[in-house]
Amino acid sequence: MTRLDEYRNWLAAAVEQARAGEAAGGIPIGAALVGERGDIMGRGHNRRVQDGDPTAHAEITAFRAAGRHRGYGATTMVTTLSPCWFCSGLVRQFGIGRLVIGEARNFYGGHEWLAECGVEVILLDDAECVRMMADFIERSPRLWYEDVGS
Amino acid sequence: MTRLDEYRNWLAAAVEQARAGEAAGGIPIGAALVGERGDIMGRGHNRRVQDGDPTAHAEITAFRAAGRHRGYGATTMVTTLSPCWFCSGLVRQFGIGRLVIGEARNFYGGHEWLAECGVEVILLDDAECVRMMADFIERSPRLWYEDVGS
Repeated sequence: MTRLDEYRNWLAAAVEQARAGEAAGGIPIGAALVGERGDIMGRGHNRRVQDGDPTAHAEITAFRAAGRHRGYGATTMVTTLSPCWFCSGLVRQFGIGRLVIGEARNFYGGHEWLAECGVEVILLDDAECVRMMADFIERSPRLWYEDVGS
Repeated sequence: MTRLDEYRNWLAAAVEQARAGEAAGGIPIGAALVGERGDIMGRGHNRRVQDGDPTAHAEITAFRAAGRHRGYGATTMVTTLSPCWFCSGLVRQFGIGRLVIGEARNFYGGHEWLAECGVEVILLDDAECVRMMADFIERSPRLWYEDVGS
């Protein structure tokens, strides 16, 4: 398996999360925190609607699900959508070493800033992720703009 | 009451949170999200220890406690300590208009970056906040460095 195949497998886990959130009436963004040996340490999806929690972005819920650790340099944050400033700040503060992104067409967050800060950033430009998010924004624009604070 | 008095009152609410967290064996950082009319919309403290939750920084728990809203431009985030990149990212992403900080001696986070992004930043350099954090870091260095991902 090539490294790119591995990234695509991890993204599939994030997409599965996004779809689960969507099926529950939520915002279809999913994420996973992956450990050094490719193990999924935590996974999650946006839960603004489900929990009434404006901090429950996918990357945050995945990171939270992984529990307490020291040293994230060898971990990878995998997310279906380019991380907003909030989630980018999480990656920077905790020194997460790598970021794998499904797409950055529907939302362009802080991933370039993270790359400048030394994070390895892989943008997969995945067609399913693009479609999933575009469909959602078309269907629920108010909810989407609330989620990103605009 | 001058505006500075008002900021100091809000900071007192954040310090009260920090002290409550400390009394429960947690990290003594507190925060409050304050509304346009000076109403406290949400308050919280660091809960890494209490909840085993690495995302439970004070600013995040205060923001979460405030629930779902649209438009944070007229709100103020009040925190006992300069916000880390994670919490600074929250302020930027949601367009929180003002940031009142107890101190930035024990930890120098992203508040200058936020000022450059147009956030009104007030650094109170409060002696109690400085002492509270310095005492904690001296007592529990491992826990402190875990909390900021270093």
